[in-house]
Amino acid sequence: MAGNSFGTIFRYTSWGESHGPAIGCVVDGVPPLIPLAEPDIQRYLDKRRPGTSRFTTQRQEPDQVKILSGVFEGLTTGTPIALEIANKDARSRDYETIKDSYRPGHADYTYDAKYGIRDYRGGGRASARETAMRVAAGAVARKILDELIRIRGGEPIRIRGALVQMGPHQVDRAAWDWAAVEDNPFWCPDRQMAQRWEGFLDGVRKAGNSTGAVVEVVAEGVPPGWGDPTYGKLDAELASAMMGINAVKAVEIGAGFGAAALSGEQNADEMRMLEGKVAFLSNNAGGILGGISTGQDIVLRFAVKPSSSILIPRRSVDRHGKEVEVVTKGRHDPCVGIRAVPVGEAMMAVVLADHLLRHRAQCA
Amino acid sequence: MAGNSFGTIFRYTSWGESHGPAIGCVVDGVPPLIPLAEPDIQRYLDKRRPGTSRFTTQRQEPDQVKILSGVFEGLTTGTPIALEIANKDARSRDYETIKDSYRPGHADYTYDAKYGIRDYRGGGRASARETAMRVAAGAVARKILDELIRIRGGEPIRIRGALVQMGPHQVDRAAWDWAAVEDNPFWCPDRQMAQRWEGFLDGVRKAGNSTGAVVEVVAEGVPPGWGDPTYGKLDAELASAMMGINAVKAVEIGAGFGAAALSGEQNADEMRMLEGKVAFLSNNAGGILGGISTGQDIVLRFAVKPSSSILIPRRSVDRHGKEVEVVTKGRHDPCVGIRAVPVGEAMMAVVLADHLLRHRAQCA
Amino acid sequence: MAGNSFGTIFRYTSWGESHGPAIGCVVDGVPPLIPLAEPDIQRYLDKRRPGTSRFTTQRQEPDQVKILSGVFEGLTTGTPIALEIANKDARSRDYETIKDSYRPGHADYTYDAKYGIRDYRGGGRASARETAMRVAAGAVARKILDELIRIRGGEPIRIRGALVQMGPHQVDRAAWDWAAVEDNPFWCPDRQMAQRWEGFLDGVRKAGNSTGAVVEVVAEGVPPGWGDPTYGKLDAELASAMMGINAVKAVEIGAGFGAAALSGEQNADEMRMLEGKVAFLSNNAGGILGGISTGQDIVLRFAVKPSSSILIPRRSVDRHGKEVEVVTKGRHDPCVGIRAVPVGEAMMAVVLADHLLRHRAQCA
Amino acid sequence: MAGNSFGTIFRYTSWGESHGPAIGCVVDGVPPLIPLAEPDIQRYLDKRRPGTSRFTTQRQEPDQVKILSGVFEGLTTGTPIALEIANKDARSRDYETIKDSYRPGHADYTYDAKYGIRDYRGGGRASARETAMRVAAGAVARKILDELIRIRGGEPIRIRGALVQMGPHQVDRAAWDWAAVEDNPFWCPDRQMAQRWEGFLDGVRKAGNSTGAVVEVVAEGVPPGWGDPTYGKLDAELASAMMGINAVKAVEIGAGFGAAALSGEQNADEMRMLEGKVAFLSNNAGGILGGISTGQDIVLRFAVKPSSSILIPRRSVDRHGKEVEVVTKGRHDPCVGIRAVPVGEAMMAVVLADHLLRHRAQCA
Repeated sequence: MAGNSFGTIFRYTSWGESHGPAIGCVVDGVPPLIPLAEPDIQRYLDKRRPGTSRFTTQRQEPDQVKILSGVFEGLTTGTPIALEIANKDARSRDYETIKDSYRPGHADYTYDAKYGIRDYRGGGRASARETAMRVAAGAVARKILDELIRIRGGEPIRIRGALVQMGPHQVDRAAWDWAAVEDNPFWCPDRQMAQRWEGFLDGVRKAGNSTGAVVEVVAEGVPPGWGDPTYGKLDAELASAMMGINAVKAVEIGAGFGAAALSGEQNADEMRMLEGKVAFLSNNAGGILGGISTGQDIVLRFAVKPSSSILIPRRSVDRHGKEVEVVTKGRHDPCVGIRAVPVGEAMMAVVLADHLLRHRAQCA
Repeated sequence: MAGNSFGTIFRYTSWGESHGPAIGCVVDGVPPLIPLAEPDIQRYLDKRRPGTSRFTTQRQEPDQVKILSGVFEGLTTGTPIALEIANKDARSRDYETIKDSYRPGHADYTYDAKYGIRDYRGGGRASARETAMRVAAGAVARKILDELIRIRGGEPIRIRGALVQMGPHQVDRAAWDWAAVEDNPFWCPDRQMAQRWEGFLDGVRKAGNSTGAVVEVVAEGVPPGWGDPTYGKLDAELASAMMGINAVKAVEIGAGFGAAALSGEQNADEMRMLEGKVAFLSNNAGGILGGISTGQDIVLRFAVKPSSSILIPRRSVDRHGKEVEVVTKGRHDPCVGIRAVPVGEAMMAVVLADHLLRHRAQCA
Repeated sequence: MAGNSFGTIFRYTSWGESHGPAIGCVVDGVPPLIPLAEPDIQRYLDKRRPGTSRFTTQRQEPDQVKILSGVFEGLTTGTPIALEIANKDARSRDYETIKDSYRPGHADYTYDAKYGIRDYRGGGRASARETAMRVAAGAVARKILDELIRIRGGEPIRIRGALVQMGPHQVDRAAWDWAAVEDNPFWCPDRQMAQRWEGFLDGVRKAGNSTGAVVEVVAEGVPPGWGDPTYGKLDAELASAMMGINAVKAVEIGAGFGAAALSGEQNADEMRMLEGKVAFLSNNAGGILGGISTGQDIVLRFAVKPSSSILIPRRSVDRHGKEVEVVTKGRHDPCVGIRAVPVGEAMMAVVLADHLLRHRAQCA
Repeated sequence: MAGNSFGTIFRYTSWGESHGPAIGCVVDGVPPLIPLAEPDIQRYLDKRRPGTSRFTTQRQEPDQVKILSGVFEGLTTGTPIALEIANKDARSRDYETIKDSYRPGHADYTYDAKYGIRDYRGGGRASARETAMRVAAGAVARKILDELIRIRGGEPIRIRGALVQMGPHQVDRAAWDWAAVEDNPFWCPDRQMAQRWEGFLDGVRKAGNSTGAVVEVVAEGVPPGWGDPTYGKLDAELASAMMGINAVKAVEIGAGFGAAALSGEQNADEMRMLEGKVAFLSNNAGGILGGISTGQDIVLRFAVKPSSSILIPRRSVDRHGKEVEVVTKGRHDPCVGIRAVPVGEAMMAVVLADHLLRHRAQCA
């Protein structure tokens, strides 16, 4: 209700501020007997971790996760799993100067409007630091998907993300190579474009500016039948999951906004039988029809706005109604879209794990 | 949980199939002492009602709503409000031929994959007929917004929608005229474009085809401070609300996907003081920052795919794994985006009413 | 949230006032392919129906239930099941005289304190008439329990209730005979006591008075392992389910209040192996340990207060702060505990069906 | 859903096992600007803390709580409040011997039946150690009640508990003295009975046995109008809250089970006007009618079974189906009812804080 929990049967609750002593989450509803250890989570946190290249914030956070409950002798017990990460490199002094000012494009003004109080240090609760917990919960979700599908003898579900646009520069889909994604600091699937982005982003960074981006997340291997129709639709919950990530302003599934320009003849994905199984001849639906998975790849994209933490002075006001100019110093990401890639993957995993459990609750 | 309820404090649960005896919903959590009568709901249902022009389905449904509980002597009592609409013009025979076939682009295959059974008559529960209940619940939500804001002496919240793109044809935003919206059968804010759409859609209709569209919904007058951060964000819940409408494939807020191409300098909306109040100099945020309303207009758009109910034969398969060709006869909308306009408005109202109550629960 | 829904995965929402046009509920989360027809529900409604003997209210309500959605060709489809009962024999005029007065022991004063408005006709929403919907939802829950356990090849779960105390008169447990329960108008398992109650209750009724009672509900055949620990405990949810029935003031499970006087040695139910299965040597736990079913009979009791609708004048006040005397005419039950028996059974079924689905969601 | 959260708007989620590194909870939905510091919580934890007299377990746990988020400069910010307590004195070796055995009366067998795995050390998640988190959340709830009522200028709500029965020995209600409650190690309101209990409990303890008890909790000052009717009734949620406390087997409100023996004439609490306000002449309702508070004291009692951790050998079975004898060594409470007193108070506070927020959401 109060907005710090996500999911229904697989459900996690996150807590913590950017400059508090720690951040954490409680992951509830995890089936018992799932193998789980800290490295299973750490490998995904390391993808999101700040300070790994010159293109992300220089805040040095090892982001070492601890499992405090819910796992016994290497297996989940069905009880809540508490995860915690200490904050190590908070420099609260950086924020003293903007203590009373509202940084344009940030949640400073709206938090004050809502609560009448805010922890201004590093954005407090509104900081994208919270997304570490999405990644942690997502890692647990992946283990559930792996184990429950392994038991049934199914093909594993594979969830992968990539950056497909940085500023105005889009990847060439014909050049798409998943292997390339791990080879550049942008999770870019187009090797040539990755090089171009490097120059582009250096320019942005040196100008003290920032840039927007588009992330694509694909889930392969999801069986048909997941998703609750009407108000628990798989696409509606994915939309909520992605739009809820810091700085996201748009979400589309399959053909997305492009579907508006299509005719019904072009858009509807035709079906044939292939080796005894239903096969679709295209995937404009993005793997979801009527809110329920079709068995095709689930494909979505979301837009991440450029960070508002920039060195270029912007006009604003302060708590006392005085007009001010704001320059956001501190250590920031010139393109927050990059680190949003593992976050988007994690939210996909969280939604799918929840829907797996929901599906077997009603229909198993 | 099972996906037929929407909202938290203001919460409605819908039921009913396209060709069952009736459809209905139960609206719970409505504050007491709100004036409410059937015409308050009927006026919005009439906007969505089929059969009002040659550009919508010719199914004749008067869609007369009945209030069965929760209102006493013209006022809400705080108890659940049951709303019901009889189905009058169901022609189930039209569907006998596709009883076992999966119509491409429809939820036939996924419902069967999920449940192992489906009411094939008119799409059953997956029919857009369910959206009548969204409109009905939205009408109750509007009354709550009106009354609670009137009591506080505030300016009323105004929620309006328009069709901004049909097929490849977008409106000219410079020609935007809200008054025009009521004057054409498309809810088009651009009078010239409305005429062009008329010819375009006649062509589509006569070809037995259909077309996609984009709807824009704007809420004016929402005070700053509504929305729960992290996982109950106002934008995340709007994204879920819109993506959950039948045939919607994409949602964006404010600059939306356009934000990806912007720099931080361009994107962040600057603030000044204007007549003692905070004023924003632009609205790329679409009225929401950090998941909380800024006090600006809330502006969103969503894409509606072209209806898959077309006369052009499409390849498909049936329940028994046989390859078939499907032609969808019956009475259908050549552009379902048109009737999605009042539905989008309703979902905006529902989300806002819920967040008004949630905000006062925690912060009033 | 607003309090008209019960359950999580199996979840129903009820609506309607005593003297409105109808009452109803929407049952959501029902697994697909469960055989269900109106008589499956009607047989339980008939047990609760008023006017069946001189010991219950003389209001004549046939309580004919209609299924309006969610069932297709005799099977549930997994979509919401809307149930509805018309109100036939409301005599609202009976209530004109107490329109402004608060009947002592009724919810009149508290509804006004909460909402500032109430439908005074027959108690409005606070009327025990709402319990018809508990019975209807309970009947659906029983079908789920039957079908899902049948599929697994298990023994059916049997849920039975009895009245074990009327006023000061308790049944003799040594004389307990389930067959007797159907043979008297009180659901009394002790034939001799049933006769004694007849005289006692005639006296109460003729005096224009009423009497309290205790109901016992037993569920046999529940497998071990159902119930979520900590805050979704099976016993905690049963306590909530029973305490929420109109006029209930106490709930106990197993040894209940008697456990307070026991020693640990006496109370803990010892275990042995019997035919290869765990067997308990006693059932002080009432079939639940740590909030999870043990596989023994689940046994609970709840106390129903005497109806406050009596002919004996009682001192009270009215809406305007005037002191008044209230005599409750109209048609009432001298012992509401009798009709609470099928309601208690129904709530047991509802809680068990929900926990069956919750258990398989997490642990199946 | 998965059972580790309690409440709706004011909602907390607890985690942690008896012998894990720590236990904790996340308290969500707390209004902003409530003064809160660790001592506000510690004072109530100290009441529940083990090892304070010879009548409670000798496990030495300082139970020092840390606030890790949600409080800034001494005030709540409206964001989630994470609370954590390190486990200091776990002696896991004590439990090696019963690793595979099911202790009768404990949740060992049922956890295994549900999850197929359990953390046997000290009862794992089923340990009453979890109740420390109920007390911590309850302390936050009390601060909310205090502050929100102070702002409105109302009388503070006072929540107090007492032990009213130990084994077969009940207090004399004529001798009730709230001041006495703080003066003896039993929270006994009857000074004479407290002395008698001392001898009784020494006997129980020396015999390696345990005893049951009854706790009474009273909330004074709750305004009329709190509670959601039908399925969110104040009494139903209190019943769930109390029944969910470890070892509780019964709950009653007001006259409780005694109401069964009363007539309607005796039971209904009459009303008069007193100094311009509604006054009730008795309180058989225990302060709740129709699920909504009347403004009278809310009075409830719950029964706590005797601990099953006793030195007297009991017959049982083990995981492998072998019959065994179990003696529970380790350090245990001879009367767990004593330490249930602050837990019952806390759950009363939690339910009331949630209902305060729920009431103002819908009806403020």
